[in-house]
Amino acid sequence: MERHFETELRELKEMILAMGGRAEKAIEEATQALILREPERFERVYQIEKEINTDHIKVDEASIKLLARQSPLAADLRLVVAVIKINTDLERIGDQAVNISHNGKRYVAEPPIKPLIDIPRMAQEVCTMVREALDAFVQQDHELARRVLNRDDSVDALKNQIFRELLTFMIADPKTIERALNLILIARNLERIGDHATNIAEDVIYAVTGKDIRHGAHPNPSSSTN
Amino acid sequence: MERHFETELRELKEMILAMGGRAEKAIEEATQALILREPERFERVYQIEKEINTDHIKVDEASIKLLARQSPLAADLRLVVAVIKINTDLERIGDQAVNISHNGKRYVAEPPIKPLIDIPRMAQEVCTMVREALDAFVQQDHELARRVLNRDDSVDALKNQIFRELLTFMIADPKTIERALNLILIARNLERIGDHATNIAEDVIYAVTGKDIRHGAHPNPSSSTN
Repeated sequence: MERHFETELRELKEMILAMGGRAEKAIEEATQALILREPERFERVYQIEKEINTDHIKVDEASIKLLARQSPLAADLRLVVAVIKINTDLERIGDQAVNISHNGKRYVAEPPIKPLIDIPRMAQEVCTMVREALDAFVQQDHELARRVLNRDDSVDALKNQIFRELLTFMIADPKTIERALNLILIARNLERIGDHATNIAEDVIYAVTGKDIRHGAHPNPSSSTN
Repeated sequence: MERHFETELRELKEMILAMGGRAEKAIEEATQALILREPERFERVYQIEKEINTDHIKVDEASIKLLARQSPLAADLRLVVAVIKINTDLERIGDQAVNISHNGKRYVAEPPIKPLIDIPRMAQEVCTMVREALDAFVQQDHELARRVLNRDDSVDALKNQIFRELLTFMIADPKTIERALNLILIARNLERIGDHATNIAEDVIYAVTGKDIRHGAHPNPSSSTN
């Protein structure tokens, strides 16, 4: 029985949403493990990332099948191409959650150098970006997608602040260097997640409006610490 | 006049190759500017990156047009989907070359802390990865693509070595911390380029063989400094 394009597309959207939920969960678990200093919790991140990888292959297969069977055109075609791209970004968010876990494990193995305030805030901000970018995709809401782009600036500002503060710790006491470096790397992992959410939002805007806003209205990812 | 799928596909491949050439050039210019301490040379990188961004939009448009007009199936469809993904990776390689330039500019503005040996080697290695991954794509050579995956391990090893060496500099003399951090960030920018080349190689293997080797045979991007 031949099914309708809309049915298959709805299934694809549901797959992306479930995958996005897992990506958010991976970021949350990694951050909570770091904040609460619960090393065993990082293991959950590795488990969730495996599930994300399975999703990744399934979404790719389903998208290619849909293109082959339905040969969608115009807005429908742009939407399926957006799914293929969003899929890649979600998979890489999973990779970054794993990287946070590697760096986090090393950090919690030693005494803390400071209370973690900005990193949890940054993690929350990028989680919101991922959720809103996916909401924008499902609801085909390009205005919500644009708000995601604006959030990226505050993520960059937080990362620069974290970077500068940790630099003062390192210079004041070389014994903190390795630990401070782990936190700097975690801030960069979170920044990368923000970049992926930005990519998703840009793909949504293109899929919905047909307008390519990349490399134009929104500045490129380049701030003071790259 | 309706043109053949093969003609349009060949044009798409040529676009990707030209874009890949620019991506390589951007990495080379950024690295040379750093090694030769020629800050004005970083400006060329920004120029090349703009061209890459223009390529990015053009390749996306051409791919979507080709899907819409020709509705390719099976191996042909996988190939066009691979182009869409490779396009994204090449664009992000351009971003990383820009990031190297930002970090490099800061580094060359101060006296050097050590002769640069491993970073140029790492840059050469990732350039080779990008070139071979694109050769593998154009020649549809999945064995060459597999060799790219193996190279990624040596890039990771170089990055870890750079990281450890710079850590000893930072601990021995806090005055080197900021400069060492710039070099650590550059090593990570290069590592990300290696990751993008790996992604391209994996896409080639999938396009050519129909086999998804991601998340399986080749280990995930996760080594000792993430």
